[in-house]
Amino acid sequence: MQQNHSLKDTIAAIATPLGSGGVGIVRLSGSRAKEIAKQLFVSSREAFSDFRPYTMHHGWVHDRNGAKLDECLAVFMPGPGSYSGEDVVEFQSHGGPVVVRTVLEAVLASGARAAGAGEFTYRAFVNGRMDLTQAEAVAEMIAAPTRAGMTLAQAKLSGALGEMIAGLRAKLEHLRAQLCVAVDFPDEEIECLSPEEFLQETQSVGESIAALLKNFHRDRCWREGALTVLAGQVNAGKSSLMNALLGRDRAIVTDIPGTTRDYLEEAVNIDGLPVRLVDTAGIRETEDTVERVGLERSKDMAQKGDLVLLVIDRTREILPDDISLAQDLGPERVLVVLNKSDLFDENGHGESAEAVDAGWFERAGYQCVEISARSGAGVDALCVAIRERIVGRSGEPDAGELVPNLRQSQAMESAVAELEALATDIRAEIPYDLLGVRLETVCDIMGEITGEIASADVLNSIFSDFCIGK
Amino acid sequence: MQQNHSLKDTIAAIATPLGSGGVGIVRLSGSRAKEIAKQLFVSSREAFSDFRPYTMHHGWVHDRNGAKLDECLAVFMPGPGSYSGEDVVEFQSHGGPVVVRTVLEAVLASGARAAGAGEFTYRAFVNGRMDLTQAEAVAEMIAAPTRAGMTLAQAKLSGALGEMIAGLRAKLEHLRAQLCVAVDFPDEEIECLSPEEFLQETQSVGESIAALLKNFHRDRCWREGALTVLAGQVNAGKSSLMNALLGRDRAIVTDIPGTTRDYLEEAVNIDGLPVRLVDTAGIRETEDTVERVGLERSKDMAQKGDLVLLVIDRTREILPDDISLAQDLGPERVLVVLNKSDLFDENGHGESAEAVDAGWFERAGYQCVEISARSGAGVDALCVAIRERIVGRSGEPDAGELVPNLRQSQAMESAVAELEALATDIRAEIPYDLLGVRLETVCDIMGEITGEIASADVLNSIFSDFCIGK
Repeated sequence: MQQNHSLKDTIAAIATPLGSGGVGIVRLSGSRAKEIAKQLFVSSREAFSDFRPYTMHHGWVHDRNGAKLDECLAVFMPGPGSYSGEDVVEFQSHGGPVVVRTVLEAVLASGARAAGAGEFTYRAFVNGRMDLTQAEAVAEMIAAPTRAGMTLAQAKLSGALGEMIAGLRAKLEHLRAQLCVAVDFPDEEIECLSPEEFLQETQSVGESIAALLKNFHRDRCWREGALTVLAGQVNAGKSSLMNALLGRDRAIVTDIPGTTRDYLEEAVNIDGLPVRLVDTAGIRETEDTVERVGLERSKDMAQKGDLVLLVIDRTREILPDDISLAQDLGPERVLVVLNKSDLFDENGHGESAEAVDAGWFERAGYQCVEISARSGAGVDALCVAIRERIVGRSGEPDAGELVPNLRQSQAMESAVAELEALATDIRAEIPYDLLGVRLETVCDIMGEITGEIASADVLNSIFSDFCIGK
Repeated sequence: MQQNHSLKDTIAAIATPLGSGGVGIVRLSGSRAKEIAKQLFVSSREAFSDFRPYTMHHGWVHDRNGAKLDECLAVFMPGPGSYSGEDVVEFQSHGGPVVVRTVLEAVLASGARAAGAGEFTYRAFVNGRMDLTQAEAVAEMIAAPTRAGMTLAQAKLSGALGEMIAGLRAKLEHLRAQLCVAVDFPDEEIECLSPEEFLQETQSVGESIAALLKNFHRDRCWREGALTVLAGQVNAGKSSLMNALLGRDRAIVTDIPGTTRDYLEEAVNIDGLPVRLVDTAGIRETEDTVERVGLERSKDMAQKGDLVLLVIDRTREILPDDISLAQDLGPERVLVVLNKSDLFDENGHGESAEAVDAGWFERAGYQCVEISARSGAGVDALCVAIRERIVGRSGEPDAGELVPNLRQSQAMESAVAELEALATDIRAEIPYDLLGVRLETVCDIMGEITGEIASADVLNSIFSDFCIGK
């Protein structure tokens, strides 16, 4: 999208989150930023004549007709020493949603264009203020679900991943140069670049990339949050469990089956691990249209989950649906939650009945945890079990380690595949001039990661994921 | 609450709205603000030694253990030339919810205390940066539901209301001084302050206050939004109408009665008029526990509404419930919305049936509007009708007019009542020394409005309505 937008326009957007708060910021970027801001700003100092760079000025922001809108602080950051690399002005007004929108409207009416998603960062990238891995780290920092996710983004924000990739690319470019010499002066082929040396260099770059890829797979759940799906029969206590896990009343909890019509997603932080908890409609055959839609979604969701909490009401029978869901997913991805433990003693004896026998699950290798969502008993132990199940599979991240994102890791997988094919070709003694093409392909892939080479489509897809105002 | 908090503490809070955005701000205020900020900030310029006042410094914010958290801009605003009147530092980091929370945690771990709601503004008030009407205008500005509400807040933000009240109080204080002289030198009573002059002055102040009070009543809905309640039978099309008014799919719309379990409130801006639309559960007798709770709430809500949209499904019969709701509220507060007009021609003839006869409502003086929530036909006309019904009763606000808020208007009503009683006493020739007490009461009430006299309870209740971070 940004590519269709002229880089010559002065753009503007609300830079702070939407909602109510103390302060809201409207940001302008482009050659007319200062001129537009000066039209709308009236300083509280009579002697004011121009913005001093990087200085907070107190005053009022007006609309184009001179009507006072709000008290504000204005700051001018001249390019190239600004976020976008262009002239930037920010108005800090009161953080009311209508206030910031009205200030933005005044700025737009004075000649700025509404910025697209990520357009300030896109300009920072185009103007050489950051490479593509840093631009992506900006979005990852904003979306970081926990401190661990933030640490991962921060390591890339300073450019360390881009530098590492650029370094590896430089190594490969150096090999390409040697290859060209070897091709041009075939008699000196061995002297310029021995096949052993070529193979070793190729493999060394491949291993460096593979190490980054390993981090990608290991740290996905730290970055995105582990998708944990609550499944089970209608009224097994999924909503109550969700509330117990959230520690607050989010879903409506009643005794009527089928209250949760749609699914709810909530972020919860289990001792630093980001977890996306999804409460689905109960698994049961139903003729109810609303619930039917919900049920289909909930089965899909269980298939996608990193972990499924299969909630069983111990006061009721286990249905074939419960067992078939567990069998579909396997013991690796299911944690059986035996709810309403408060109604039974440790042997499963209750006042008026016996607890349902969950022996099938245990015998089939499914981990079972007893809880009472109502009293909260066992919920802490359940959290420990959830965390162990997820982290046991993925490990914890180290501070400062470089973890590529999905796009970067896909490019890296292509690069590794090409490098492996190259190694096979070297071993097969394919002539150097044929190998050059493959080497060039790998260099281009590396260039795409840092954005030194990047198609409009790739840039579009990256920056359209940003929020407006960044 | 603020009163229990020491003014000596250095306080900190997230100043931007919660959520994801480009920029998030953590604000510190107090004597240790700069010292704490310097511990955590590492400038990107090696030569950095101290913050220059009102200047944006680029760098990184770290935690207390020296771990990098995020890239940021830091700005130091020394007291008394800052928002709170104390030393203030702001860290502008990336606007991710975890990022700003982590920066705040680092600041708190370094010795700042988490600010209470409105505590920065409370300090601004205590430090004489603003009077109480200005402090309240800050909260009103942030909460302003439309540009009109913002204009009302802005007029008070600059202190015009406080100055006007202070001016009226000064007039009364002058009268009190003259009264004292008259009491001390009874022979010169007439000369010092004639009863006619006393009466006239008293009445003139009372009229000024009464004019402000008139603005209060007229502009309530511009400030708070007019509460407009959708009522009617289950499945009459209230959710569809709400969606049509919002212009987007907010509520789940299905053909199953009783889908809207709880009530939904949405803000909608009808040609500049802020309207709080509430969709309630349908009015019907029910045994369903969830719906029963919803129904009780919806009847309460209809009673509170500035306007009730009674939605009638023209394909179904009108129930006694519809008529009794309309009778309870009266034609002044009810707008009858005849839905599913797309199924009938203008005479009420449909393909398979005749439209229900709404003649009872028309004969009883209720305004009726035909719409089709599904096709959107008639919805624009309904908006015009809603706006006319609400604005017709309240008038539109003028730019720059001073409109007191609820607290201020309650104080003003007391003041007017006291001034009226005083006028009666003057006419009854009650001795001047007895009148002094009443005059003093009015002066005190006026002082409470501006905060020159304010009890801890009043301040608590004002500042606890603020958001955290302002």
